[in-house]
Amino acid sequence: MKEDKRRVEIFDTTLRDGSQAEGIAFSVEDKLRIARQLDRLGVAFIEGGWPGSNDKDREFFERARDVEWKDARITAFGSTRRGNIAPEDDPNLQALVESQAQAIAIFGKSWDLHVKKALRLPLEENLRMIQDSVAFLKAAGRHVIYDAEHFFDGYKANSDYALKCVEAARQGGADVLVLCDTNGGSLPEEIRAIVGAVRDSLSHPLGIHVHNDSGFGVANSVAAVQEGAMHVHGTINGYGERCGNANLCSVIPTLELKLGFQCLPEGRLERLTYVSNYVDEVANVTPDNRQPYVGASAFAHKGGIHVDAVLKHRETYEHIRPELVGNAQRILISELSGAANVVAKAQKHGLDMQKSSPEARAVLSEIVHRENQGYSYESAEGSFELLLAKATGGYRKLFDLLSFRVIVEKRNPQEEPITEATIKIMVDDREMHTVGEGDGPVHALDTALRKALGFFYPDLNDIRLTDFKVRVVNTKEGTAARVRTVIDSQDSDGHTWSTVGVSPNLVEASWQALVDSVEYGLMHRRSGEASENVE
Amino acid sequence: MKEDKRRVEIFDTTLRDGSQAEGIAFSVEDKLRIARQLDRLGVAFIEGGWPGSNDKDREFFERARDVEWKDARITAFGSTRRGNIAPEDDPNLQALVESQAQAIAIFGKSWDLHVKKALRLPLEENLRMIQDSVAFLKAAGRHVIYDAEHFFDGYKANSDYALKCVEAARQGGADVLVLCDTNGGSLPEEIRAIVGAVRDSLSHPLGIHVHNDSGFGVANSVAAVQEGAMHVHGTINGYGERCGNANLCSVIPTLELKLGFQCLPEGRLERLTYVSNYVDEVANVTPDNRQPYVGASAFAHKGGIHVDAVLKHRETYEHIRPELVGNAQRILISELSGAANVVAKAQKHGLDMQKSSPEARAVLSEIVHRENQGYSYESAEGSFELLLAKATGGYRKLFDLLSFRVIVEKRNPQEEPITEATIKIMVDDREMHTVGEGDGPVHALDTALRKALGFFYPDLNDIRLTDFKVRVVNTKEGTAARVRTVIDSQDSDGHTWSTVGVSPNLVEASWQALVDSVEYGLMHRRSGEASENVE
Repeated sequence: MKEDKRRVEIFDTTLRDGSQAEGIAFSVEDKLRIARQLDRLGVAFIEGGWPGSNDKDREFFERARDVEWKDARITAFGSTRRGNIAPEDDPNLQALVESQAQAIAIFGKSWDLHVKKALRLPLEENLRMIQDSVAFLKAAGRHVIYDAEHFFDGYKANSDYALKCVEAARQGGADVLVLCDTNGGSLPEEIRAIVGAVRDSLSHPLGIHVHNDSGFGVANSVAAVQEGAMHVHGTINGYGERCGNANLCSVIPTLELKLGFQCLPEGRLERLTYVSNYVDEVANVTPDNRQPYVGASAFAHKGGIHVDAVLKHRETYEHIRPELVGNAQRILISELSGAANVVAKAQKHGLDMQKSSPEARAVLSEIVHRENQGYSYESAEGSFELLLAKATGGYRKLFDLLSFRVIVEKRNPQEEPITEATIKIMVDDREMHTVGEGDGPVHALDTALRKALGFFYPDLNDIRLTDFKVRVVNTKEGTAARVRTVIDSQDSDGHTWSTVGVSPNLVEASWQALVDSVEYGLMHRRSGEASENVE
Repeated sequence: MKEDKRRVEIFDTTLRDGSQAEGIAFSVEDKLRIARQLDRLGVAFIEGGWPGSNDKDREFFERARDVEWKDARITAFGSTRRGNIAPEDDPNLQALVESQAQAIAIFGKSWDLHVKKALRLPLEENLRMIQDSVAFLKAAGRHVIYDAEHFFDGYKANSDYALKCVEAARQGGADVLVLCDTNGGSLPEEIRAIVGAVRDSLSHPLGIHVHNDSGFGVANSVAAVQEGAMHVHGTINGYGERCGNANLCSVIPTLELKLGFQCLPEGRLERLTYVSNYVDEVANVTPDNRQPYVGASAFAHKGGIHVDAVLKHRETYEHIRPELVGNAQRILISELSGAANVVAKAQKHGLDMQKSSPEARAVLSEIVHRENQGYSYESAEGSFELLLAKATGGYRKLFDLLSFRVIVEKRNPQEEPITEATIKIMVDDREMHTVGEGDGPVHALDTALRKALGFFYPDLNDIRLTDFKVRVVNTKEGTAARVRTVIDSQDSDGHTWSTVGVSPNLVEASWQALVDSVEYGLMHRRSGEASENVE
């Protein structure tokens, strides 16, 4: 680690504040899996939950004790003690100590109005609650992070009292005082001014915890660090209540790559894109392609001019090298893209194609035609490569479909339906007529297809479907709605690909994507073998 | 309009720069529909496309001439003339004039390196290209907006030359000089310093156009306005290449509600949430629930403490009143929510329920149970209301299912499959056995169900399905994958609702959501009639 870089502690609260987001619910197993990735990323603190509030979070801390954490300290969250009782009698503080977490974050009020209206306690008692609670946890030997809830709103309303609140935490022995913009309503210049004033008024390590309600989550976090905060709260992908917390996937690379701070151990930043995708996957959240730095579109180029320029000089349309955060440049194919994009993409796939060649024109016009029908190749590179292979002669047809039938039958209202698919196909002049059962139509078709093809292509055993999604497209056209099915697949070498099908009929759309999945998977394995032979 | 507010011109480029986003492709009809909504919102400029680059954009300007625009000026986009030819001989400038757009935005280079490397022209020729092109368009009587591409990067590399470029546009007669952070790599303090320097060096109206690659799209736009820019480029929902353009849905309310600027005519800001949803709908983009101000989650409260507090004092967790931007407060139901949330939600639906009542406990435990199976009620309020009605006795069962069967059969590989659904149900002791055809399994089941129920419930004719989505859930559990189907429905009064079904079988999950849709739709109409009778 270079000595001249100022260090910033990263405090990740994906598992606690992040799980307050609409649509997100982590199991204990999910939390442990994510925590392991955060540890590998190298954050300083992982806030795992509120052990005083529910059994799930208590279980997380229990199980986390058995894991050997390398860089991160597992942190438990809770509130200051209730009014008018001793810390040792407060069940919430007891649960924090019993969690055995070595770091503890507790929050308390900073806004005089809240103390009077919500807590209905004298202002002095709130200060005692803060100081007592911190001191109690320090006496138990813990690293204590004090979250001054609503600090910025409180400071704007009554700066004297807000400062007294963090001073009470300092006197209690808090290791860091975290100033929270709980409602996310503050502007960067307010954050700058108030963090600066607190820094000048009490000399103690400061942290920042902001929400993104005005779109300033990243800007406000960075502004606070520039004013001296050395501890930053946030979440992976900006998960969190309402508009989310500060997005660590933007904050960390901005601080490291643009401002020279050190947030993670050397060499870890390039894990960021992986962790971002991993967390979305576990949370079952559709990734935000437009996310800065780590999004799938963050370094994707679509307009013809941009593609031409960026291929010559990357810095013309890329603010950093995508590899620094583990991301990659992508060239997109769409009706807006010129033949140059198709050629660039073909070259990425190892195909030599000239911009003005009939093959490039043919692929482009096929894409335009299919996009008008509702296909989308941006997220279905497997199907795109098959189109390319068909245009350049690299495609080998596996079979011809003669017919299929799917029956879903529910005879007993208490039971799941039975699904059966039959297919009839021609493989090398042999008619194969097979039947398969499955949990649903896609699964049953897949089973029947594997039965029919397995004899000819034993490699099929190494390919499996991992996900599928369906949505209606072109509802705006007023004609019959079409559905688009996207299937994700994986082979035993960990190679993954996506394929697409479109039809008014869900089963037909799924069938198309399924056939593409199998054809692409086998084509890829053949070309893999071929290139291995060359080496 | 109050005279003491400083005015800021909003320049919307959703239809031009926004359409460069991955996954977005607008038809001409889409563009016209969106433009009409932008005009009603009251933006000053609507950039419709690049008439010199494709037929679709040319057609847009042709058709836009026949529309009566109230507040917005339709704007055409293009580049400065090519090197070493006269403006009147440049096809791109000709196309701009021929578009008959009254406002024209043209971009030119500001970075000396680009002029030398990409254009391969002398630096002086680039200045002439800028001045000539602007002067040519001014002579044609147009309002000219000059986009100084890569201005901030160019200024950092060679400030003298970058300033000469915008000076050339000023001399050509440009109405406004727009400084572009094309790569989105600049920090707010850089934007502030450079906009300030340009403002001090040439006294002329300035604009700002930034991208969001570092997460500063909103912060950088607002910083530029604070330094004197009076014209702001951006897109609805932040669409745009890579990480998108500055999000007008965050920029406008921040400038209006927090900084006292006037961006839209009085009274229009409350249309913002509607326009945001409308544009996503036309673009067929899944809305970002966490979007500041206008997102579905922006004022949604989930944690028990937050819900309790926000119901007492809204300002405790809401930075603005959601109604100001046409959004609304929402109380979410999830396993993390306490009984208080269920009660609050029930009250919103007009049901009187006590926090500690057995009904509230029963609903909460049913929700927890179902969420563990993969159901999600956050986006399926129709199904949630049915659960509430079942717990409180307001539910009336329409029928009992005895059996169903769906057959999807493809006999000819060139044709779409035929889909047939048969259902057998008991309605009021009468067995109904019906069959329906459809484009796919959901449509066919819907047809059969309507045949069976239509006799008993003629109101069914007023209900239609508008959308459905399917995704795999719980793939992480390692057990059999389940799919979740969400169906959106609408009645003839424009009331819309969503319902959910979960099963390992796609058809079964769809059936559940379909039954909920019909039951909820008829229940809602009955209660609507009941309350009309009361009035």
